[in-house]
Amino acid sequence: MSELRCNLISREWVIIATERAKRPHDFIKTKNKAEPLPNYKNDCPFCPGNEKLTPSETFALREKNSWKVRAVNNKFGALAQDEPLVRKIQGLYSSMSGFGIAEVIIENPKHNTCLPLMDIKEIEEVVRVYKIRYTEVEKIKGIESIIIFKNHGPSAGTSLEHPHSQLIATPIVPPQSRSRIEQAVTYFDLTGQCIFCRTLSDELNAKERIIVETENFVSFVPFAALSPFHMWIFPKRHSSSFADINEGEIRDFAKILKETVSRLYYGLDNPDYNYTIRSMPVNENGKEYYHWYLSIIPRVSQPAGFELGSGMFINTALPEESAKFLREVKPA
Amino acid sequence: MSELRCNLISREWVIIATERAKRPHDFIKTKNKAEPLPNYKNDCPFCPGNEKLTPSETFALREKNSWKVRAVNNKFGALAQDEPLVRKIQGLYSSMSGFGIAEVIIENPKHNTCLPLMDIKEIEEVVRVYKIRYTEVEKIKGIESIIIFKNHGPSAGTSLEHPHSQLIATPIVPPQSRSRIEQAVTYFDLTGQCIFCRTLSDELNAKERIIVETENFVSFVPFAALSPFHMWIFPKRHSSSFADINEGEIRDFAKILKETVSRLYYGLDNPDYNYTIRSMPVNENGKEYYHWYLSIIPRVSQPAGFELGSGMFINTALPEESAKFLREVKPA
Repeated sequence: MSELRCNLISREWVIIATERAKRPHDFIKTKNKAEPLPNYKNDCPFCPGNEKLTPSETFALREKNSWKVRAVNNKFGALAQDEPLVRKIQGLYSSMSGFGIAEVIIENPKHNTCLPLMDIKEIEEVVRVYKIRYTEVEKIKGIESIIIFKNHGPSAGTSLEHPHSQLIATPIVPPQSRSRIEQAVTYFDLTGQCIFCRTLSDELNAKERIIVETENFVSFVPFAALSPFHMWIFPKRHSSSFADINEGEIRDFAKILKETVSRLYYGLDNPDYNYTIRSMPVNENGKEYYHWYLSIIPRVSQPAGFELGSGMFINTALPEESAKFLREVKPA
Repeated sequence: MSELRCNLISREWVIIATERAKRPHDFIKTKNKAEPLPNYKNDCPFCPGNEKLTPSETFALREKNSWKVRAVNNKFGALAQDEPLVRKIQGLYSSMSGFGIAEVIIENPKHNTCLPLMDIKEIEEVVRVYKIRYTEVEKIKGIESIIIFKNHGPSAGTSLEHPHSQLIATPIVPPQSRSRIEQAVTYFDLTGQCIFCRTLSDELNAKERIIVETENFVSFVPFAALSPFHMWIFPKRHSSSFADINEGEIRDFAKILKETVSRLYYGLDNPDYNYTIRSMPVNENGKEYYHWYLSIIPRVSQPAGFELGSGMFINTALPEESAKFLREVKPA
């Protein structure tokens, strides 16, 4: 018997199609065993020694003569800071110049590592650079929204093996953010509560969708998970902007991030995935009702015509079963 | 120089990333030349003679002893009509039983055909069955929305070669429809006009994004196309529901559908694609402000973390260039 579930935070509906549900193990894609990657590749623009192959560096965490994490402008950036900020409205056609920021954050000098294989200390430095770049970019006049995200693997949209994340800052607030804000405001006005805090407390009570809990964070499969193994990491402390993350939380966030993505790596044989940090638009505050979080979307299923035509999703995995499976994975 | 464009109908923003723009020919994926398909496969559940392999038939257009188009319940349907219609709300968790309709519309007895290879007469019969099933399903108590769509090819989410479309009817109005309705209402209240009629008239004036124009329909690449070769087919006659399509329009719709998808088939070497008919929710009217249409989304690019994290899109093809390319394709 299928079930429709609504994600109140995003106002999205999902059909949990248990009739054709797959067991967690069915999502493991047997890959052609590729050659193991070398830890250095001489034509990789992100490998140490090849720094001249990237556009200008915007920041780097260094130790002695070498960098540990490095942020650079994206060579193929969809937006650029040197564009003028011009809006054009002609009848129904509203457009703007391509002003914005597009950076790549190279997570580690090693070509063949990834979050599950990195030390927590190394991931902490990645998260620290996320924060440093976020807080720098939000000062730039004209920037309204900052999206930090990761594309892991070809079906998640990356062609580069070297571990990296991206930051894109746009001169508009994406309508998807607006819609989440509207939901949060409606709930706040109705109850005086943050919808995210309430969700977190409900999930901690229900327990059945929790994956990892640390001192400051919780990772879980949402009640209305959009796709198999879709996960959220919520900070326990109510805070609307990722820029507010403090030193102790950075350390702890690195820990839960590693532990959570390791469940995918070891449990599902390193599937492709995306993650994205959802934070308040930079020129708005939303202190009372908004709450930043990280969303992880493994690419183990393919949205088709129904999803495109309705904005609804069909999830062939039961969220409670996905969570149980991930919870029980033994990260090596 | 990139450009951000807004699609006022859907309230979506797209970055037209001309910096990394590809030329239309770059989107042609050279496939491994597969064996040509046979016109009959004895294990295909949609081939004539294997009717017992499908669940119950809901409708068929027949000629003498054989069917020409056949609608059946989906064996792996995400929703089912025999589920009770029950809503459950517990705190933030809103859910419903999996009540609804999931049908497959087998477009042709031949295993190895597809819209570009079919006669207009045959496509007309497919469209007629779309209408017949739409108008039957909208009478079912509890149904709020009907989505007719097609998944063509594996990356568009189908595993079955035999040409088919699908109909899914849901017991809720998808939030994506709500958002489009809100946009249309806002525009109507402001101007007294249908936003779709206005878009169509602007496009016919601008000409540069038009692909095919027939007596009753126009296909074009939207100003803020979400992805390369994204296309819309609008009826010229203002009408909010697909159920209103009349006999003359059915014939003409078959013609423009064939001519439009043929541009993909011959111009881009038969790429995978989805299409979906967007129509008014069944228990609402929207006569003045809403306008049904068909949207075609070729699967030639991969949404990644930025798209998932912002709801914005990056399109690496200039809509005017995509339209010109498609316009100039000679459908064989």
